[in-house]
Amino acid sequence: MGTRIQQPGVGTTKTEFFTFAHPPNELQLESGQKLGPITLAYETYGLLNKDKTNAILLLHSSTGDANAAGFHEGRNEHGWWDNMVGPGKAFDTRHFFVICSNVLGGCAGSTGPSSINPQTGKSYALEFPVITIADMVNAQRHLIDFLGIEKLLCIAGGQMGGMQVLQWAAAYSKRVRSAIPIATTLRHSPQQMAFNEVTRQAITADPEWRKGYYYGLGRPETGLAVCRMILNITQMSDRVMEEKFSRRVKEPGERGFFTDDFEVEGCTRYRNDRFVKSFDANSYLFLTKAMDQFDLSRGKLFASGRPIQTRFMVVGYLSDWLYPPYQSLEIARELKARKTDATYCEINSKYGHNAYLMSVEEQTHLIRHFVQTDIFW
Amino acid sequence: MGTRIQQPGVGTTKTEFFTFAHPPNELQLESGQKLGPITLAYETYGLLNKDKTNAILLLHSSTGDANAAGFHEGRNEHGWWDNMVGPGKAFDTRHFFVICSNVLGGCAGSTGPSSINPQTGKSYALEFPVITIADMVNAQRHLIDFLGIEKLLCIAGGQMGGMQVLQWAAAYSKRVRSAIPIATTLRHSPQQMAFNEVTRQAITADPEWRKGYYYGLGRPETGLAVCRMILNITQMSDRVMEEKFSRRVKEPGERGFFTDDFEVEGCTRYRNDRFVKSFDANSYLFLTKAMDQFDLSRGKLFASGRPIQTRFMVVGYLSDWLYPPYQSLEIARELKARKTDATYCEINSKYGHNAYLMSVEEQTHLIRHFVQTDIFW
Repeated sequence: MGTRIQQPGVGTTKTEFFTFAHPPNELQLESGQKLGPITLAYETYGLLNKDKTNAILLLHSSTGDANAAGFHEGRNEHGWWDNMVGPGKAFDTRHFFVICSNVLGGCAGSTGPSSINPQTGKSYALEFPVITIADMVNAQRHLIDFLGIEKLLCIAGGQMGGMQVLQWAAAYSKRVRSAIPIATTLRHSPQQMAFNEVTRQAITADPEWRKGYYYGLGRPETGLAVCRMILNITQMSDRVMEEKFSRRVKEPGERGFFTDDFEVEGCTRYRNDRFVKSFDANSYLFLTKAMDQFDLSRGKLFASGRPIQTRFMVVGYLSDWLYPPYQSLEIARELKARKTDATYCEINSKYGHNAYLMSVEEQTHLIRHFVQTDIFW
Repeated sequence: MGTRIQQPGVGTTKTEFFTFAHPPNELQLESGQKLGPITLAYETYGLLNKDKTNAILLLHSSTGDANAAGFHEGRNEHGWWDNMVGPGKAFDTRHFFVICSNVLGGCAGSTGPSSINPQTGKSYALEFPVITIADMVNAQRHLIDFLGIEKLLCIAGGQMGGMQVLQWAAAYSKRVRSAIPIATTLRHSPQQMAFNEVTRQAITADPEWRKGYYYGLGRPETGLAVCRMILNITQMSDRVMEEKFSRRVKEPGERGFFTDDFEVEGCTRYRNDRFVKSFDANSYLFLTKAMDQFDLSRGKLFASGRPIQTRFMVVGYLSDWLYPPYQSLEIARELKARKTDATYCEINSKYGHNAYLMSVEEQTHLIRHFVQTDIFW
């Protein structure tokens, strides 16, 4: 334990499920609609202490799930933040009780468009109500209540996870000691919305999407593959692509119009990608819509009227052109203007938006120090 | 004439056609295959002088055509560089004879995948041979011969047009007095290839593409619309999108899952776009493949072994993240290292890659001065 040379992870993990909002006590959504029952899939790593003061909530991005660390039986891949969560890692499970929940609207065990609508006995599909980042956070708050945690030691997440971090602070600041929004924004720029829109169009252009009612009939995998490619390109920096993919033309015998002339193209074809094979297309549509409608800019972060007592470390990456550093800086500026304790850390990573998954060493250093400052409060 | 307040254009223009490479004298392509007969569509503006020393060749981008200036009867839009070509404009038709030809492989009157293969009586479709930027330039050289022009005063173009400019200089330097490659590169980076690949995948994912054999049966307009969106997003800067599209949410009554919540999305839906309605999908596939295979980097620009006597003005745009300025600078650096007369001009435009179509004032100033230096040689 604790050796820096080889960090053992959290090992095999299992997803748990929490169901609430049973009728007639449905969850009131921001749109005014009601939804229930709601199940949230979640995982926990480490042990909750007696006082329940060592809980950290991790919030995943639009394509993530509850499996942040360790691995599931029969699955080859580790959780999405396995390099950051475990004994001796940034979120050190020897000290902290780490929670990760799949979002409302998701497709990895939580209630979403692919779930059965109890009123019809069929998948909600496009009858699923429009959900917002605030709805996701409200649902998570029920899970945190259920776990008996009054105040979270820390919340952290990138991209859509970062939006949830900001929303937690805006809505439940008293229940969050410290917060780490990473590579995120107070609201999407038109460019970010347009990239989201084009990925949605790629999905809905696939006839296998069947206007949203594909359950039991197939999956729009062609559209999802185009979507996945766009995500991959936009989340990587120009420089890291250059390093990763040499301009090797394949052997002459392999060339031709329909073969991949260059390594980079081979990589961008994602037919066997886990996202393409298992992510629910409608979930993707609803979650990206929620991101596009998210807006805590121009003081709306403080709309509750109460000062935000949460401590912030805002993290941006120099080579991230999808969520450019100026957006992270803007978050820190808004917080400081209202006298909130906030630091802005810009990491000089080459990995583009993917840095929040890749730049482990720099993040570990920053996060460990930031979180440990609080463990003795 | 010549007033700066309102520049009259070249008026109504008409495309002309030049056919050559009749069997058995087919054009030998770089791949070794032969192709003929070949038609090139072209337009000219202004008058060729007696000595034939005032000809300027403009080279269009992957989605362009021969109609660079003026407008065609019955069409609402001006040519793609109308703001740069005409009496008193950057390429001043009072002094110069301006030529623009549709490329080999194109779909606006030139021989390309949608043309009838004389051997089968049907459209070539995917039987069209793989063409390269060098093939396009070789075909253009035949047109220039046909017009009786020994030496071009200037050649200019952006993106794929810029690649042709470089190829002209590499292959026929003695026939080009001066050259203006704009927002282009000696070779595509993996990111540029990946964006091209995803647009191709968007097209080929459309069942209406019918594995390339859609002629007479329909058009893959859904795929072309997704492709068009990606082109639009990548060619615009983040900042200009922010300025252009406010984050106005539409009236509540208009909202819903399938309506456009934000103005930017409305703009990115291109169902009635000219590209979507009339550009040949297979042409797009062949032309973007030619761009991805283009490579004059690492000295290959000088592969002929002869010094390049063409004068260069290389133009890049600060906000162009699709063809970033470092690529233009690299062109200028390669040229200067071999003692070629070259200037690099970086324009501080906000328009992203579209700057070469938008930043008229800055370009006009630079180009007019650069070209007029030569008119009296």
